[in-house]
Amino acid sequence: MTVKVYGFVGSNATYRVLASLYEKNVDFELVTVNMAAWEHKRPRFLARNPFGQIPAFEDGDVTLFESRAITRYAAEAYAGKGTDLISKDPMKSAIQAVWMEVEVQKYDPATSKLTWELFFKPMFGMTTDDEVVAEFEKKLEPVLDVYEQRLTECKYLGGDAFSLADLHHIPNTHILMGTKVKSQFDARPHVSAWASDILSRPAWAKVTAMLKK
Amino acid sequence: MTVKVYGFVGSNATYRVLASLYEKNVDFELVTVNMAAWEHKRPRFLARNPFGQIPAFEDGDVTLFESRAITRYAAEAYAGKGTDLISKDPMKSAIQAVWMEVEVQKYDPATSKLTWELFFKPMFGMTTDDEVVAEFEKKLEPVLDVYEQRLTECKYLGGDAFSLADLHHIPNTHILMGTKVKSQFDARPHVSAWASDILSRPAWAKVTAMLKK
Repeated sequence: MTVKVYGFVGSNATYRVLASLYEKNVDFELVTVNMAAWEHKRPRFLARNPFGQIPAFEDGDVTLFESRAITRYAAEAYAGKGTDLISKDPMKSAIQAVWMEVEVQKYDPATSKLTWELFFKPMFGMTTDDEVVAEFEKKLEPVLDVYEQRLTECKYLGGDAFSLADLHHIPNTHILMGTKVKSQFDARPHVSAWASDILSRPAWAKVTAMLKK
Repeated sequence: MTVKVYGFVGSNATYRVLASLYEKNVDFELVTVNMAAWEHKRPRFLARNPFGQIPAFEDGDVTLFESRAITRYAAEAYAGKGTDLISKDPMKSAIQAVWMEVEVQKYDPATSKLTWELFFKPMFGMTTDDEVVAEFEKKLEPVLDVYEQRLTECKYLGGDAFSLADLHHIPNTHILMGTKVKSQFDARPHVSAWASDILSRPAWAKVTAMLKK
């Protein structure tokens, strides 16, 4: 049975899932959801995700949505394959879970606004709102200060090994590296080294290769 | 070694953690952080949570923060005690993880704004912004529509058994039941029954008893 990801090239949540599957060496088929035709709001897709958002996921009888729940499933269901994305040591996985929550609660809210204003809006021919950019640049600063301190203590956010806690950061970070927000990363040596490290993973190179097609 | 929760009576994130510990029958000590004295921004607390927010958590050598990471730890580290808050069946726990993410991504953003405007602001002598209330009431409606449909399929959001996916909803839902937003729940019979069910759990009664002291 092939693992299927129902998503869209251009969606960071889809990329998050694909990065995890490449890390786990899990073969998958990307089924493109035609969002321009509102396919994600039709009954067939709503049966996969009642909120009508991509990605959705299928692995045999398992159907899931929410990108971070899918990556956790990939990490746990394919624990024996590829990169360990969640530690088998319960004390270590508890720490990784803390930093996975930090990504959701602190990093994603600021960086999703910034990627929207600085990357997606210009791409769609819309005008960037400089006030919103300034507001969320200011919100990102103290988050990256905490990350800088954390990354002096260990190489990755969740500990000494790369994990989902880092992986979940990749798509937004990838985009921000092509914007003026990169200067916030450059100003913090440990954050900067960490960003280069997680963005240079072979699994992520496979995702960005799909983007260029 | 006593489990310690560093928190504050009046904090929904603290209550989320306490509810999980009562469900697991784990003895704990609540160490009150004096937020009025900015204790949460002092070095000793920042060593527990570098973001300077409550709650923080200690169990022997394990120190954690972020309420939902702490509840997950409680569920996993005390798997043999009290209520099963995460299923031991990986397929079932994957579905529970989906609905835990839904709470974070959909329910919490709307309901945290509503509890702030309708409960905490009046409590602090501040004025409720009716426009914000209207905006987030509107955002909550489609979320509860999906919940209503989901709860026709199974008794709890994560499946047939109560889990962290439900527990994480309790604190905000408890507050909303005392506001005009209750009408949104009343209008949906399955959501209304689910809310009554999760709010009537003995573990939650123990938390609300602390509130009344």
